[in-house]
Amino acid sequence: MEQRLSLVTLGVTDLHAAHSFYERLGWHGQEVQETVFFQAGGLAVSLWSREKLAADLGVTDHASDSFGGIALAHNVHSPAEVDEILAAADEAGATITRAAAETFYGGYAGAFCDLDGHSWEIAHNPGFSLADDGTITLPDFSAD
Amino acid sequence: MEQRLSLVTLGVTDLHAAHSFYERLGWHGQEVQETVFFQAGGLAVSLWSREKLAADLGVTDHASDSFGGIALAHNVHSPAEVDEILAAADEAGATITRAAAETFYGGYAGAFCDLDGHSWEIAHNPGFSLADDGTITLPDFSAD
Repeated sequence: MEQRLSLVTLGVTDLHAAHSFYERLGWHGQEVQETVFFQAGGLAVSLWSREKLAADLGVTDHASDSFGGIALAHNVHSPAEVDEILAAADEAGATITRAAAETFYGGYAGAFCDLDGHSWEIAHNPGFSLADDGTITLPDFSAD
Repeated sequence: MEQRLSLVTLGVTDLHAAHSFYERLGWHGQEVQETVFFQAGGLAVSLWSREKLAADLGVTDHASDSFGGIALAHNVHSPAEVDEILAAADEAGATITRAAAETFYGGYAGAFCDLDGHSWEIAHNPGFSLADDGTITLPDFSAD
């Protein structure tokens, strides 16, 4: 198994509301067959009925919209961008779960849940190289 | 907010067991400060204590290890690779939640849960362009 992700699918209860939420954050997707697909760098993020997603995966869904044990992070180039995105998310109906603040690793970050409870951290992390095209390169931690 | 992901963090209950699971699938990570980081194309996948992740995000965790409403997908170049990866995951302790089979979109895919219940779909999808470097490019669905 190669070391990469192809698609991250977020289960949602109201596809149009979820699509609008991400549009209000500035994303542009394609809606096809009750699914919304966003090109997100070298992978895709999609929105699909949470109920259908669980059925399709062959799993039982015990807990709608509570924490699912996964966090998505979006790293940015400056602390100001963290504030801007959190403000936009708040305005679009997100729940801010951690106000932006300095982090132990010398960065600046905050977190929100989208309309379906999916957690996003918005972070400025000077230790993780962020290229102009948005790709992240991990440091060699053993060199610390 | 640019249209990209930087990091996907999977909450786990036993970091070493989770790290070993992904190593058995062929991934190589760096363990630092009770976190494992994997470079995964232009983003990173990390493993971290589910409890610490929830606390860090400022959310309450009601449902350990049940379906979290998110699916990760890993697309491959051939149906045979789907079978190989599902067999490797099964051997490494995953739960196969959907045996590999042909899909409605003309592909071939199966799904498993990792040790902490995170769902992965392994798919051969001829409709999604998969480059040699593993990046995915969505089709223009409006051209169908």
